[in-house]
Amino acid sequence: MQQKKTIISGERIIMGIDPGTQIMGYGILRVLNGKPSMEAMGVMQLGKYGDHYIKLAKIHARVIGLIEEYLPDELAIEAPFYGKNVQSMLKLGRAQGVAMAAAISRDIPIFEYAPLKIKMAITGNGRAAKEQVAFMLQKILHIPNESMLPQLDATDGLAAALCHFYQSNLGNGDTKYKSWKDFIGKNPDKVKGL
Amino acid sequence: MQQKKTIISGERIIMGIDPGTQIMGYGILRVLNGKPSMEAMGVMQLGKYGDHYIKLAKIHARVIGLIEEYLPDELAIEAPFYGKNVQSMLKLGRAQGVAMAAAISRDIPIFEYAPLKIKMAITGNGRAAKEQVAFMLQKILHIPNESMLPQLDATDGLAAALCHFYQSNLGNGDTKYKSWKDFIGKNPDKVKGL
Repeated sequence: MQQKKTIISGERIIMGIDPGTQIMGYGILRVLNGKPSMEAMGVMQLGKYGDHYIKLAKIHARVIGLIEEYLPDELAIEAPFYGKNVQSMLKLGRAQGVAMAAAISRDIPIFEYAPLKIKMAITGNGRAAKEQVAFMLQKILHIPNESMLPQLDATDGLAAALCHFYQSNLGNGDTKYKSWKDFIGKNPDKVKGL
Repeated sequence: MQQKKTIISGERIIMGIDPGTQIMGYGILRVLNGKPSMEAMGVMQLGKYGDHYIKLAKIHARVIGLIEEYLPDELAIEAPFYGKNVQSMLKLGRAQGVAMAAAISRDIPIFEYAPLKIKMAITGNGRAAKEQVAFMLQKILHIPNESMLPQLDATDGLAAALCHFYQSNLGNGDTKYKSWKDFIGKNPDKVKGL
């Protein structure tokens, strides 16, 4: 079912997501010759699904769908490491888990960034407001006003993708990996266990 | 890639798992004409994989593999709702999430049971020791000594499957569902949100 990917030399697709139990924001960043641009961004409202399993199924299916549509090389996830209680962390872990399983099943390496780290990378301020992150994304990626979604949560996935682009460029530039195994083989020290 | 399933009238396969970040126990219960028997049981050691993503990938792949091998009708999960801290719950949630994603991707309905509930269903004592659960499973399912795995954790998955068999029989007997959607349609009240 996987589409054929047209390989463009020097191209790299980074998918960013912010999976939660109420909302999932996602963004697709296309990097061509080292220059990032916004390919797609969106948000999925999950609050309307009262059932926890339906939410998990929706997250999993959407991430699989986005992977098949955009064939990303890497997945960046906004992943808070702290929550108000063990119950909410279990639910968040499950939401992250079903999203990660989609990437794992397609051999796409996963990178996690804490919200503070993402805000810092985009705005220079780890405590920046969502409006400020959205403003900077629009500026950096030259997103026209009409393409910006009114929901500020939609920018969280795109922000994770751009944060990953900055981070990976700090190290070894535009490195690409054929698969998760390939990536681990080449970067054993980069794979951060929790 | 899915195998053709030989449909035996009155047959039902329940898969039980206990996904954790150090060990995953699993068990396959075959119910023929209302009588349960142990089809398979096992344990996967995850502690040797230092990396968190490798663990998640191993859990996801193993659950997918077991589903393709045994074609279960339902998945029962041992799911603790409390943990020592938010960090461990996030990790546990991810382990559960990647396992659940395997079932979700194959349209297999998921049922969760707390450890106390499983112990109660098998032994009549919610605080029973693992040895007692193993002893009762062996007795109830007529498992010969040579088929019992020495690791007591291996019985946790099988215990979840047997607990689900008991629970589902309390309600509406040997009900089967064609898919997750079919199941939800027929049992809106049975789908427990968290």
